[in-house]
Amino acid sequence: MKIAIMLYDRFTALDCIGPYDVLCRMPGVEVVFCARERGEIRTDSRMLGITADVAMSEIPSPDVLLIPGGFGTRRLMSDAYTMEWIRGVHGVSQWTTSVCTGSLLLGAAGLLNGLTATTHWASTDLLETTGAIYTEQRVVEHGKIMMGAGVSAGIDMALTLVSRIQGDDVAKAIQLGIEYDPQPPFDCGSPTKAGPDFVALLRAINEAEEQAS
Amino acid sequence: MKIAIMLYDRFTALDCIGPYDVLCRMPGVEVVFCARERGEIRTDSRMLGITADVAMSEIPSPDVLLIPGGFGTRRLMSDAYTMEWIRGVHGVSQWTTSVCTGSLLLGAAGLLNGLTATTHWASTDLLETTGAIYTEQRVVEHGKIMMGAGVSAGIDMALTLVSRIQGDDVAKAIQLGIEYDPQPPFDCGSPTKAGPDFVALLRAINEAEEQAS
Repeated sequence: MKIAIMLYDRFTALDCIGPYDVLCRMPGVEVVFCARERGEIRTDSRMLGITADVAMSEIPSPDVLLIPGGFGTRRLMSDAYTMEWIRGVHGVSQWTTSVCTGSLLLGAAGLLNGLTATTHWASTDLLETTGAIYTEQRVVEHGKIMMGAGVSAGIDMALTLVSRIQGDDVAKAIQLGIEYDPQPPFDCGSPTKAGPDFVALLRAINEAEEQAS
Repeated sequence: MKIAIMLYDRFTALDCIGPYDVLCRMPGVEVVFCARERGEIRTDSRMLGITADVAMSEIPSPDVLLIPGGFGTRRLMSDAYTMEWIRGVHGVSQWTTSVCTGSLLLGAAGLLNGLTATTHWASTDLLETTGAIYTEQRVVEHGKIMMGAGVSAGIDMALTLVSRIQGDDVAKAIQLGIEYDPQPPFDCGSPTKAGPDFVALLRAINEAEEQAS
């Protein structure tokens, strides 16, 4: 089974590395990082580069597609090449998946029309412009489409995906392998739990970062 | 503040990318990926390459050191250059930290003698050969040393580290920013919770992988 993770300029690293380090542990799986062109792709912070080992054109029919989020998604929503590639892959994939604002690209490609969907909590309005209906769930499934919420939700999404592909026992073994027994130091990982002040602060930071870029 | 993440051949990606995507969100911070030589470093699965932007010799005095785990740590425990660099950095750092089997390198460098410490649950015996005393805690602190347990524990460790460096409010804002409200699909992320059968299975897989490499 071949799993393609699509990179692009200004992706968020944890969105794809959480799922990568879950999915690559499935027996018989090959995870392939791809991008418009081969080579190093830098993250949203610019402090990290990850290698795209193949060009998207070289991997037109992976069994699983995973699209991470990041500020770079905004520009790609109107990029014809990316939209056509995603639709082509989705036409033949066993699973089409996203983490965080990666779902904006599934939506822009027309895959989420009328469906409940998830994304980073700060991008729900933008998601709904694509015809999707935001729902506050950490993992959302519709047939072969699976979406995780913001950033760290990709780990929960990927473990769920493993359980669908190779069964609960493999997923449990992988969860133990990555010692995923989370103990967050605070109980503030969602807008509801964090409260309006933190939400307003983060929205302001996000907007400043988008404008600066 | 400069944070150095030390890469090496056969590191585990999530061990460092979980903390990276927490720490890089602190205001005024620069995260730098380093390795023995500049260039692409491949992970334990060989399916992913991450760029070391600088050589370790170029960054002898970061404010924070973070060492991820991975099968590659075994060889480095007896690598004189690495041991000397770690001791040198620790001599001037504000924080010296590890995730997963990264603590084997702190131990081999002589930093954990007589201290309680953590690592991946499958490497506790090896950790204790360095003079450390394994304790089943997800995050362990001694002065300026902080360690996270296996792989995904780096996220919890990094959020704890942010709270020490810039206070609880910044840590909470970052936890909300990465939407870290974990909902693991199973309750099996530690040996105690997963039970002896899964633990034996994972130990066998780990040993096979180490021997094959």
